[in-house]
Amino acid sequence: MNFLEERIVKDGIIKEGNVLKVDSFLNHQMDIDLFNEIGQEFKKRFANKEINKILTIEASGIGIACIAAQHFHVPVVFAKKSKSINLEGEMLVAEVESFTHKCKNNVIVAKKFLNPEDKVLIIDDFLANGCALQGLIQIVQSAGASVEGIGIVIEKGFQSGGRIIRNLGFQLESLAIIESMDDKAGTVVFREQ
Amino acid sequence: MNFLEERIVKDGIIKEGNVLKVDSFLNHQMDIDLFNEIGQEFKKRFANKEINKILTIEASGIGIACIAAQHFHVPVVFAKKSKSINLEGEMLVAEVESFTHKCKNNVIVAKKFLNPEDKVLIIDDFLANGCALQGLIQIVQSAGASVEGIGIVIEKGFQSGGRIIRNLGFQLESLAIIESMDDKAGTVVFREQ
Repeated sequence: MNFLEERIVKDGIIKEGNVLKVDSFLNHQMDIDLFNEIGQEFKKRFANKEINKILTIEASGIGIACIAAQHFHVPVVFAKKSKSINLEGEMLVAEVESFTHKCKNNVIVAKKFLNPEDKVLIIDDFLANGCALQGLIQIVQSAGASVEGIGIVIEKGFQSGGRIIRNLGFQLESLAIIESMDDKAGTVVFREQ
Repeated sequence: MNFLEERIVKDGIIKEGNVLKVDSFLNHQMDIDLFNEIGQEFKKRFANKEINKILTIEASGIGIACIAAQHFHVPVVFAKKSKSINLEGEMLVAEVESFTHKCKNNVIVAKKFLNPEDKVLIIDDFLANGCALQGLIQIVQSAGASVEGIGIVIEKGFQSGGRIIRNLGFQLESLAIIESMDDKAGTVVFREQ
């Protein structure tokens, strides 16, 4: 097990319905030393890529992306989620359907922050069905920029998001991929990487 | 002028109605080197305080709080904004009225992440009327924890939030306090600190 898988086993809480709660260190309370290890690992996995911008999505991706950015020495842009589009100026918008919440949301980035010459690393905390991620990819491509890689902290390997993104040819690196969880036994099985 | 005031003059955009746009470096695209300088300055201003947790609020406070936390070596908790309360488990909730958006929002933190022994530094990007900040203070106090200080990146000194918070006796440090702005001339006047 890597450092993240160990932490998930130690502090993650498994709930009925394949829910994994990691709010004590990842997406409500945030362990910044852990984020630094995550950033370092992303840097290692994308060492061969020339990246000049990190793109993430509010809210829980922001902290991870900012700490990771210190290892890449690049700025971070976070996409906004909104039901309506009321931001001024020219916007890149992707409409994505949420599987979990069964509603449509817009993923929005100001046009001026993504340019055709940008080589983008997308970072987010979770990947399950990948709706938000598909919106981010769409936005980068609509700006004429390139998605150099995708760094995810925890992927639910038993849901379809990761497979779809890899099938599309993207370099998707998930630091922990969960194959299965058992809320009765409190156990998690990770994919060998 | 300090480093932040210089950056505001250089890259901030003043719009009609006392609107200051700093989305190219603070709250949409994020300059992580600048965030590091901000974090360092917060550490200096709260050097005499024993702080064991940073509290911020989604979304644009998160990046600043995470980078600042590296100077304090403490975890960060971010409060969630929501119209409804649908998070499970015991929650600390403050209802706050937004001046800008003329609506009520809940500021929410899971109870388990704020304890009576916590010495909290609150960090946020903007302070104007201080509605969100009042909600954060209320939440810390309802947990029995103490607000050791409040670090704000940009305060609109011509709005009432800062005065109210200082009148209540809190150590509020704003790295740039704007006294006035002129969108026609494109000028900003900062308060001498």
